[in-house]
Amino acid sequence: MTEPLRIALAGLGTVGAGVIRLLDANAELIARRAGRPIEVVAVSARDRAKDRGVDLIPFDWVDDTSALATHERADVVVELIGGSDGPALTLARRTLGAGKSFVTANKAMLAHHGLELAEAAEGASVALKFEAAVAGGIPVIKGLREGAAANAIERVYGILNGTCNFILSKMESEGRDFAEVLAEAQALGFAEADPSFDIDGVDAAHKLSILASIAFGTQPAFGDVAVTGIRHILAADIAEAAALGYRVRLVGVAEAGPAGLFQRVHPHLVPVDHPLATTTGSLNAVVADGNFVGRLFFQGRGAGDGPTASAVVADLIDIARGEFGPPYAMPAASLTALPPAPAGERRGRAYLRFAVVDRVGVLAEIAAAMRDAGVSIESLIQRGAGADGTVLVAIVTHDGPERCIAQALEKLRGSQSLAGEPMWMHLLG
Amino acid sequence: MTEPLRIALAGLGTVGAGVIRLLDANAELIARRAGRPIEVVAVSARDRAKDRGVDLIPFDWVDDTSALATHERADVVVELIGGSDGPALTLARRTLGAGKSFVTANKAMLAHHGLELAEAAEGASVALKFEAAVAGGIPVIKGLREGAAANAIERVYGILNGTCNFILSKMESEGRDFAEVLAEAQALGFAEADPSFDIDGVDAAHKLSILASIAFGTQPAFGDVAVTGIRHILAADIAEAAALGYRVRLVGVAEAGPAGLFQRVHPHLVPVDHPLATTTGSLNAVVADGNFVGRLFFQGRGAGDGPTASAVVADLIDIARGEFGPPYAMPAASLTALPPAPAGERRGRAYLRFAVVDRVGVLAEIAAAMRDAGVSIESLIQRGAGADGTVLVAIVTHDGPERCIAQALEKLRGSQSLAGEPMWMHLLG
Repeated sequence: MTEPLRIALAGLGTVGAGVIRLLDANAELIARRAGRPIEVVAVSARDRAKDRGVDLIPFDWVDDTSALATHERADVVVELIGGSDGPALTLARRTLGAGKSFVTANKAMLAHHGLELAEAAEGASVALKFEAAVAGGIPVIKGLREGAAANAIERVYGILNGTCNFILSKMESEGRDFAEVLAEAQALGFAEADPSFDIDGVDAAHKLSILASIAFGTQPAFGDVAVTGIRHILAADIAEAAALGYRVRLVGVAEAGPAGLFQRVHPHLVPVDHPLATTTGSLNAVVADGNFVGRLFFQGRGAGDGPTASAVVADLIDIARGEFGPPYAMPAASLTALPPAPAGERRGRAYLRFAVVDRVGVLAEIAAAMRDAGVSIESLIQRGAGADGTVLVAIVTHDGPERCIAQALEKLRGSQSLAGEPMWMHLLG
Repeated sequence: MTEPLRIALAGLGTVGAGVIRLLDANAELIARRAGRPIEVVAVSARDRAKDRGVDLIPFDWVDDTSALATHERADVVVELIGGSDGPALTLARRTLGAGKSFVTANKAMLAHHGLELAEAAEGASVALKFEAAVAGGIPVIKGLREGAAANAIERVYGILNGTCNFILSKMESEGRDFAEVLAEAQALGFAEADPSFDIDGVDAAHKLSILASIAFGTQPAFGDVAVTGIRHILAADIAEAAALGYRVRLVGVAEAGPAGLFQRVHPHLVPVDHPLATTTGSLNAVVADGNFVGRLFFQGRGAGDGPTASAVVADLIDIARGEFGPPYAMPAASLTALPPAPAGERRGRAYLRFAVVDRVGVLAEIAAAMRDAGVSIESLIQRGAGADGTVLVAIVTHDGPERCIAQALEKLRGSQSLAGEPMWMHLLG
């Protein structure tokens, strides 16, 4: 057995403690698979005294997190602090600058600084690995970077945020409204006290931009992801979708083509027989469409200490084996910069829902706006007034340009007939 | 750009031609991802004159397939001939013996000779890769070898034969019987003229033994796989299963534990909400249960020229990158030899179906055999006589030892009340 791979670990939250537990529980197996033991030698976190359920005595405690980058005994730094900038970024830059490999679960940092960090890693011939940053324990970075590497990927899409999926699944199975289910998810620890990163789609957008870069060989372009979250979905939307044979999921979709790079996180109606529809609860799932392999589907647990630690340690095993290369599957310098593809040029079917005032002429106004914008209606359902006196009108359109729907909604903006913003969801095609 | 990775290709059937087409169609992308071009330099097949829809002029044609092993310009040999022994095995041994890397889609050869070939590859410090041998285009070898490498895998199971799944899906959706659907599948090219390797479960067993070895760190033990195919499943079985909330799938299951290595390919009843139930048509799917990651699910196309070529070329890209190590995730010499775990010690629920003669006392005889063997019956359905005058009795048992069911069936063997062999399927737990 050769020398161990020695780890400095920054951040001892649930995932950091999970990594320590995993490396201990599966130590013998990991050493066999990695060809050598993997050992934590140093740790750093904010509060030394906190009980994390793991024994920290064997490790060198380092107060200054950024000093882990140059810890004399560490071969690799694992960053589990989080945050796009600040201490995590400082640590990443210093570690790669010191010629050591760096493993992270930090999607926000990668979404904002991934290209710079990849260049630094390649320049130093060390690893920058981030399997845990997307879809938790599912080896989807590896699946795209290596497993599907022979393919031109036409589209990559998936359910990238377990909190949103948990909430939507619960709204679906229990017929309850968003706010109520969110509060319960927070109480259970499935949603953060400040849930906006999750429920507004930002977290999914971070992950989508990473997937897109690897799938298409394009520079990460988080700023170009169009993002809509799940706050405004009603129990009634989910019920209408179910009646139509669909389930509501927050789906991140990325496509690369002649029009540029299209990236969007948005609520979608997913056909019940699509694998994303059977992705329930806090599961994550990713689909990649390759030009030779066809559709690949990966599903598993997208968060939690066990799955995330599994992904972090998989990266460490790759490093211990020496099986790593450019973080984005090809040299960062060769990633192309694609312009964002305008959504208006896209075609598709849409679900539109209006909360309207219950009075004569409302339906005619909506129908006229659709007609004038050239939107072809496949079905329209109006349900009787709810407790607040409003009526819901749900429309499913035929296939057509999204531009036309945007025009119709623009025309209806400010109409006295509407009570609140319309809901627009895309049908997954 | 460094030197190309140069390939000698043995076998020019649909997959071999697919590899040539893929390397041509995605050449630029592959060179970016692999860090260098991947080029075919030599080919060998039985019939030089046959039109395969690809231009063979650029390649050196070699009549003696085994001579590819020492082709002076080739870095890697890709074997797509098939067959557990014969020319494929000769080529594998000679290639590795010559210190060149070897890529194959040949599950039969790996099931029988994988350990020997892995030792040869490790001895020569070259790659032996076989992503295409299991589940076609789905990167499940990589998923287990690397993606889930941090985990103790408790169980790996899946749908490993697209022909069987196609037939079962069609029996399910159309209510037709096995023989009829098989004939149609053969006419469509979804089943071989001699389908026994597929429908009797042998092909799935080859693949399962490969997955088990990588998942558990055990020596491949194809001879210990208990195999039952799908020949004797009736449309009525599928209908009964559906009424109970299950779908019928041919599932390969492997588990490693204190009792030894359990490997079985057998028709199972899969709950409709399980991802294997939504794996329809010729799709394949694999589930791995890891002690930290939980359940990982991989689904995609398990056969065909495009998906299989995708997996072959993914292996070539890994080799071009230098990202490869021991074929079975750890040195072959360190794989443990586990004894086969006896099925009788297993517990579970079962579906049992009897075709019986329609006369007084038959049900009592079956019920008594169950009682005497200690089998607890959860439900029993008897359906009126079919065209041939026989009656079907379908039983679902409570959880219990498989040994008891085997005893009950043994007791009923040769009974004048039974018209034909009973059908025993396991409920996926």
